[in-house]
Amino acid sequence: MSDGHRSGCPINLSLEVLGDKWSLLIIRDMMFGNRRHFRALLTQSEEGIASNILADRIAKLSELGLITSAPDPSHKQRVRLSLTEPAIQLLPVMAHLGAWGRRHLPVSPDLAIRAQLLEEGGPALWDEFMDELRELHLGVARPAGTPSVLAALTAAYLAQKEGAPLP
Amino acid sequence: MSDGHRSGCPINLSLEVLGDKWSLLIIRDMMFGNRRHFRALLTQSEEGIASNILADRIAKLSELGLITSAPDPSHKQRVRLSLTEPAIQLLPVMAHLGAWGRRHLPVSPDLAIRAQLLEEGGPALWDEFMDELRELHLGVARPAGTPSVLAALTAAYLAQKEGAPLP
Repeated sequence: MSDGHRSGCPINLSLEVLGDKWSLLIIRDMMFGNRRHFRALLTQSEEGIASNILADRIAKLSELGLITSAPDPSHKQRVRLSLTEPAIQLLPVMAHLGAWGRRHLPVSPDLAIRAQLLEEGGPALWDEFMDELRELHLGVARPAGTPSVLAALTAAYLAQKEGAPLP
Repeated sequence: MSDGHRSGCPINLSLEVLGDKWSLLIIRDMMFGNRRHFRALLTQSEEGIASNILADRIAKLSELGLITSAPDPSHKQRVRLSLTEPAIQLLPVMAHLGAWGRRHLPVSPDLAIRAQLLEEGGPALWDEFMDELRELHLGVARPAGTPSVLAALTAAYLAQKEGAPLP
């Protein structure tokens, strides 16, 4: 194709954008770990991403309009990364990838609990979580007192990790 | 990790298996194009896959238990490829990738119509389509007279491609 894409098929175009494993893992860590800084993405990566790959993928994701960077409001010398609306809309893809992996691959229990809760919660929970991500990343406030899906997922993960009973 | 995986996170493991772009495109063509032979996957590929990459990815997908090959019942010298149950269960991931691409990327109308119909049909349609794929690939018969989702998607694609009105 003259515009440089392999084809205009929506699955192919999505894979051209997301087909790099590290790119989706960075988005995952920003979504589920609320990691907003280069250092947190580097040092807390379960998969041990290399700093040159992380820098390269952040640049690519920025070019693609999936993440933005701006001075951190609480720490002007630091850059804080945010997901954009298109990136937030990848949550259902993540939920399905997690559900599929949990069913067919040798997952770790502590790292699989969030995928399980997302699968059980279904599209209604995904919508709530996307609204929370819009608040965290885009500044779109939700009504006061709206419960945090991220906090619930994180609590379940920590409880599982420590072998503590779930609340 | 000692078992050779980057981490036991279900999203990471799914990406280790599927993170190669060509692998998911081969599964896409087997699902939506009902391409069951090496030659069809090679010559009808919208994205122009190279034959060495196709051979390599078919071998990888076989090792991973996502496709099987067996002599073609109608043509014993030919090998026919089939999707396995885990591969069939990737349909919701495909549907979401297609929906996301259609919304955010410069898709071709003829190649996007099936993604649109899958999105509009939602999980109920995906379940029907997965049952049809189980019939086509695993020999699990459906009740006689069950309508074909694949035929409906293919008809919509051809109508869009030829600029004909949809039925």
